Amino acid sequence: MVQSKEEVLIEVLPYIQKYEGKTFVVKYGGAAQTEQELKTTFAKDVTILKKIGINIIIVHGGGKEITETAYKLGIETQFVNGHRYTDRRMVDVVKMVLAGKINKEIVALINQNDGDAVGISGVDDNLFIAEKHLEEGADIGLVGTITRVNTALIGMFLSNKLMPVIAPFGVGTDGTIYNVNADLAAAAVATAVKAEKLVYLSDVEGVMAGGSLVSTLTESDSRKLLDDGVITGGMIPKINSAFSTLHAGVNKVHMIDGRRKHSLLLEIFTDEGIGTELVR
Amino acid sequence: MVQSKEEVLIEVLPYIQKYEGKTFVVKYGGAAQTEQELKTTFAKDVTILKKIGINIIIVHGGGKEITETAYKLGIETQFVNGHRYTDRRMVDVVKMVLAGKINKEIVALINQNDGDAVGISGVDDNLFIAEKHLEEGADIGLVGTITRVNTALIGMFLSNKLMPVIAPFGVGTDGTIYNVNADLAAAAVATAVKAEKLVYLSDVEGVMAGGSLVSTLTESDSRKLLDDGVITGGMIPKINSAFSTLHAGVNKVHMIDGRRKHSLLLEIFTDEGIGTELVR
Amino acid sequence: MVQSKEEVLIEVLPYIQKYEGKTFVVKYGGAAQTEQELKTTFAKDVTILKKIGINIIIVHGGGKEITETAYKLGIETQFVNGHRYTDRRMVDVVKMVLAGKINKEIVALINQNDGDAVGISGVDDNLFIAEKHLEEGADIGLVGTITRVNTALIGMFLSNKLMPVIAPFGVGTDGTIYNVNADLAAAAVATAVKAEKLVYLSDVEGVMAGGSLVSTLTESDSRKLLDDGVITGGMIPKINSAFSTLHAGVNKVHMIDGRRKHSLLLEIFTDEGIGTELVR
Amino acid sequence: MVQSKEEVLIEVLPYIQKYEGKTFVVKYGGAAQTEQELKTTFAKDVTILKKIGINIIIVHGGGKEITETAYKLGIETQFVNGHRYTDRRMVDVVKMVLAGKINKEIVALINQNDGDAVGISGVDDNLFIAEKHLEEGADIGLVGTITRVNTALIGMFLSNKLMPVIAPFGVGTDGTIYNVNADLAAAAVATAVKAEKLVYLSDVEGVMAGGSLVSTLTESDSRKLLDDGVITGGMIPKINSAFSTLHAGVNKVHMIDGRRKHSLLLEIFTDEGIGTELVR
Amino acid sequence: MVQSKEEVLIEVLPYIQKYEGKTFVVKYGGAAQTEQELKTTFAKDVTILKKIGINIIIVHGGGKEITETAYKLGIETQFVNGHRYTDRRMVDVVKMVLAGKINKEIVALINQNDGDAVGISGVDDNLFIAEKHLEEGADIGLVGTITRVNTALIGMFLSNKLMPVIAPFGVGTDGTIYNVNADLAAAAVATAVKAEKLVYLSDVEGVMAGGSLVSTLTESDSRKLLDDGVITGGMIPKINSAFSTLHAGVNKVHMIDGRRKHSLLLEIFTDEGIGTELVR
Amino acid sequence: MVQSKEEVLIEVLPYIQKYEGKTFVVKYGGAAQTEQELKTTFAKDVTILKKIGINIIIVHGGGKEITETAYKLGIETQFVNGHRYTDRRMVDVVKMVLAGKINKEIVALINQNDGDAVGISGVDDNLFIAEKHLEEGADIGLVGTITRVNTALIGMFLSNKLMPVIAPFGVGTDGTIYNVNADLAAAAVATAVKAEKLVYLSDVEGVMAGGSLVSTLTESDSRKLLDDGVITGGMIPKINSAFSTLHAGVNKVHMIDGRRKHSLLLEIFTDEGIGTELVR
Repeated sequence: MVQSKEEVLIEVLPYIQKYEGKTFVVKYGGAAQTEQELKTTFAKDVTILKKIGINIIIVHGGGKEITETAYKLGIETQFVNGHRYTDRRMVDVVKMVLAGKINKEIVALINQNDGDAVGISGVDDNLFIAEKHLEEGADIGLVGTITRVNTALIGMFLSNKLMPVIAPFGVGTDGTIYNVNADLAAAAVATAVKAEKLVYLSDVEGVMAGGSLVSTLTESDSRKLLDDGVITGGMIPKINSAFSTLHAGVNKVHMIDGRRKHSLLLEIFTDEGIGTELVR
Repeated sequence: MVQSKEEVLIEVLPYIQKYEGKTFVVKYGGAAQTEQELKTTFAKDVTILKKIGINIIIVHGGGKEITETAYKLGIETQFVNGHRYTDRRMVDVVKMVLAGKINKEIVALINQNDGDAVGISGVDDNLFIAEKHLEEGADIGLVGTITRVNTALIGMFLSNKLMPVIAPFGVGTDGTIYNVNADLAAAAVATAVKAEKLVYLSDVEGVMAGGSLVSTLTESDSRKLLDDGVITGGMIPKINSAFSTLHAGVNKVHMIDGRRKHSLLLEIFTDEGIGTELVR
Repeated sequence: MVQSKEEVLIEVLPYIQKYEGKTFVVKYGGAAQTEQELKTTFAKDVTILKKIGINIIIVHGGGKEITETAYKLGIETQFVNGHRYTDRRMVDVVKMVLAGKINKEIVALINQNDGDAVGISGVDDNLFIAEKHLEEGADIGLVGTITRVNTALIGMFLSNKLMPVIAPFGVGTDGTIYNVNADLAAAAVATAVKAEKLVYLSDVEGVMAGGSLVSTLTESDSRKLLDDGVITGGMIPKINSAFSTLHAGVNKVHMIDGRRKHSLLLEIFTDEGIGTELVR
Repeated sequence: MVQSKEEVLIEVLPYIQKYEGKTFVVKYGGAAQTEQELKTTFAKDVTILKKIGINIIIVHGGGKEITETAYKLGIETQFVNGHRYTDRRMVDVVKMVLAGKINKEIVALINQNDGDAVGISGVDDNLFIAEKHLEEGADIGLVGTITRVNTALIGMFLSNKLMPVIAPFGVGTDGTIYNVNADLAAAAVATAVKAEKLVYLSDVEGVMAGGSLVSTLTESDSRKLLDDGVITGGMIPKINSAFSTLHAGVNKVHMIDGRRKHSLLLEIFTDEGIGTELVR
Repeated sequence: MVQSKEEVLIEVLPYIQKYEGKTFVVKYGGAAQTEQELKTTFAKDVTILKKIGINIIIVHGGGKEITETAYKLGIETQFVNGHRYTDRRMVDVVKMVLAGKINKEIVALINQNDGDAVGISGVDDNLFIAEKHLEEGADIGLVGTITRVNTALIGMFLSNKLMPVIAPFGVGTDGTIYNVNADLAAAAVATAVKAEKLVYLSDVEGVMAGGSLVSTLTESDSRKLLDDGVITGGMIPKINSAFSTLHAGVNKVHMIDGRRKHSLLLEIFTDEGIGTELVR
Repeated sequence: MVQSKEEVLIEVLPYIQKYEGKTFVVKYGGAAQTEQELKTTFAKDVTILKKIGINIIIVHGGGKEITETAYKLGIETQFVNGHRYTDRRMVDVVKMVLAGKINKEIVALINQNDGDAVGISGVDDNLFIAEKHLEEGADIGLVGTITRVNTALIGMFLSNKLMPVIAPFGVGTDGTIYNVNADLAAAAVATAVKAEKLVYLSDVEGVMAGGSLVSTLTESDSRKLLDDGVITGGMIPKINSAFSTLHAGVNKVHMIDGRRKHSLLLEIFTDEGIGTELVR
């Protein structure tokens, strides 16, 4: 539909009314985080959401770059039950790639658009207290599970109108640094701050069933799709953590296609949304 | 140009960056204040500007309705040198029409759009201290000139995220209520709060010269147009007060066409703007 | 009793101790609102109460002036079961007379005495959300019942040491403006802000029974007087709303004679008080 | 003049308007501090002044009781040029009588009237930093001159709506405690907090000249009266410090008769005042 | 053990981490309050505890000096069941010695060490509301029991980084001043502010049993020692009030030897502590 | 000298008095940043300084690790006039090593000691705005000079009792990330926040002249030592920026030996200090 600029603004007014003052946690990953044009439009998207009064918290991933940098440094990558086997050298790569390279690039790009981003990680002011993840039948090394989120630190940034961009690794009470899953970290943050929405930006259209996109997924539907083997692979823990998050008080979880320009704005500023919306 | 909703939002981002936290005073009058559709779009326009972080202060007029209501009440209207001759009975009509009827209608319409408006007048917490306007060669009655604006009251509303909508009459130090010119009241407010912009919404395209719209008017140009008799009538005091306002620290004064839908948004969210921009 | 000025001040000290920091809602009406000398003394009375630390909220009436102005504008007034039949034209008169004329006169007079009053109405920041009053067997038009009071707005004024003066009409969630009963509006405000006292200033000495004033009226006594037909007319809803208010947490309701000079001070600064005190 | 209670209240309104938010320093001494009835009325007077919004700071004396208690403890009192000769044992008596006995009695009496008094002395949070007073031709021991007043401490009490009652002794930077003159201490406090008024309550009607009271005393008049030997004795340093105080920004200094009941209220709530008013 | 300065600092770090932001009430008495060197080291000790972030509240005694000064003033001292018989003249001595002499000396000494102390008593802002202590079979005069502690006043001092030093007497609701037991006053304060620790500094090593020091005393042990007559004299009420305090939420009560230099620091900065620790 | 723990604490009291509330910027580098024991003692040292009320800001280096990691990734390191030649790939290494590896390790170690550290870099909330450093006769790539420091961000951390740990790279107004010299970054921060002290921890005893340590170095002395070629190499820019910093309002600059355990505490808690103190 052809619309003038002013008509568009008026059309988004009800969404602004609905969401101002609310908090959204965005898991940022996939193509949206690696392709130049999508990176730029993402930076603009989160900035505009912040400008209209939404509190934005970003948790980013970075698995591919970790593998690449590890390879360049002569460290072989192994996955055990979907977890990256993480020894001390790999933890250093995780820190370097996530908190050093990717986090700072995201922050710089958002700040160029006036988004007032600050990049932190799970060790800063003990943001993510973690403990060793015990995987049955295998030692996966320094992979951790988040047990506590320092919401005071996040609250300080939000109340100072700053946008926290979080590199997902955690710290044990003994100072050990653990690699943590970015999807689960985003869910932990959303739960801890009682976010209005948790949005996963990745390289899929959403949850697919029988070749077509599921617009809305209830918990009982998802159980069925899991049982029937329709939902598989990396989507399984994502779906499971999404429903835990919903049970913990987050209002909605969305899985949207980060390969599409401005998918975040489309999700938020249209009634129909895009991708899959998960509801209890 | 055809644009998708998300492209429009991205396009307005630089304007949001430019104006957030700034204060705009809008003199609201003419058709924009009397025609139903324009009233509604105006209410939406000021609400969206407030939502993106601009402090909006509205000063409204209401001359025609004052004359009509006076007539119905059997009070004849006389103009002396462009000023409404104002006796005690006319002051009552001014208060009733401005602070009672028009002000509350504007407030109700903005609040329906979630704009958090509060209607006040120059007597509330002595917002406008005024003194009798002395017109050479004529007694025009209870017409006043604003000598002091209570910026603390306006500041309280703005810091509480409320939008003040002001009925333009003032009060003397002895409690006498004076009719004041709405254009001059808007200029007095803009000056007192050191507004970024003062925008006049009225039933003209802007300042016209030789049949065409003047996009940008400098003070020296305006002197010439006044001397040449190109600018005439009610535009004269408007132009004069505009330049006083600019001298007093307001950054820009705009005269835009309130008969055009969303003219306020068009002015603010386009580089070229609309109407006439007055600069020092 | 003859007293020196300083003795009087000392005598009022215990009352100041008792009431400072408390909130009083005053329903202002009758002669106190129309006779010049009483208007002036009322303005001084509320100002002195504010100066010694009492939070004053005024809700005013204006029925007679509405009828007069409507008549002048050629609109006939009808009462149905004690309610003013209110069509769109009458709503405009209500707004003009209450929020335009009376409200601003009260505000100006209080401010001349340094009382820092601000006049608002039920539409400002949605102070009074109302719905259509359904009267059995009759359509009385745009008469409303208050369903929600915006206490945040009132709190803002009080914490900024401003005295809110409220014109009693409300707004529906669809933006319709409703005429509301001033006595009930005062009771709604007192209930919402959990006032210490609600004081009705009107043209009667108080509640009368058998030709003499009832000093203190309990709920059971009032039931009896209502059943016996001793309390009649406009006093009935006043009494009923008074007891609802007491049930809702207001400490005391007073009905005092506004025709007597300084009746408000007399009520507050003497042990015996004046008029009728209603207690649970 | 016979006045009703409510008329009196209305009459004091302009004085309340004039003084609310201002700070008065009261030097409290003489009969007002020793006779039971006057003590009680003084406690009520300062409380009512506080209740109507005036910041009250009391500096009290206690010379006679110091002499009496010293005598009972077998310590002889000597005066040198009007200064009490103060050795270590006398300093202990000064502390005991001023900060222990008198200060706490004043505080208790004011608090019984709900005046929220807190008694402190010059050593508390180093309120009065003092240095040894060097008297020409004589060693008068531990008598000090105030060189710095800790206005932050006083400000903390006032902003917490507490009334500081100050025992006048000071402390050197080496911890030595010095006896200081109460009149000068009151003047030092008034100067440091930029008080609106400094009021001396003592056992004289005011400044007398030729047998009659001087209502208003200018600095030039006072020079003359001093030169002519009309002003003598303890009044000399009082007058001198009063004018220094006026030069330092205090608006008015009053000397009033503490033997008269409610003299403080009479001074403040009448146009003519009582006693002597000193002006630059 | 020989330690360098920096090693000591590092060694105390865990104690700082443990106690910063916590509140300690110190009952200050005995030799620590009378011998010059111990007075100085105590002033330094409380200052350093304050500097590292512990909120310190001091309640001091002064029984011996009261008896001495009373004697010098010709007032005989009598003890009834361990309580000082207190008539009006004795109350004056109590006020003078506690609030005048001792309190101000402590304050001055702490302030010389930059500890920002302010001396107050139970009458200041009604800090200790007390009632007459009724002793069975005897009238002991103006001896009181604390019934309410004004924690707001204490909170004001602590939040302004000031150290309150409290002279232990109280005030009745009728203004009567009562002598109160300093140990019980300290316990009342500790209970009211929910202190982390209450520390009694006195002239004993701690609780002794069979000639040796009891390091840790549980409530059941103490019952036994009381029943067996091992604990006697002034230690009995101290022990009883200590356990009441622990029941009321204070975490630990310590009885330590004030005759030992820096005993307060030793107790707090060593794992083993000194003296007796009382636990529930 | 042998000292008991409590004597040491008392001895440091004057230093605490002197420095509490002040801000120290510590340039952290050399062995102190690479040897395990020194890393741990440094983490304890800054924590204890923070606990006693000093605001600590850390700027760290990391040159050697950058070179090593670059080498492992197949990137050759070149130095031009002492500047690291920095192309895009090297910038990535700088970000990874500084903000990813080193910064997070320092933060984790301090937080294990309860120091509440948060690691940030120059791109976070545009902390360091930089521009390309133009080196005469050579292009050294993406090496930048800091032109503006965002003190608001630092202030937010300090007022929230958090310790900022800063990775020294900056961002241009166009989003380009620049490698910046850590010594100069520390000086820029100290200047911007008007620090009390700027302390350089490195692998030298201090400024050496003729084989012995210079305890205090004035600007004129330093000019002479520079002219005589006594001060050479990397010490030259350090000395120059130190004096610029002193001119800009920082009180003192210290160069101390990070190879010595607790050198930071020794410098601060002894009168003689260690290393070289630079004064104007």
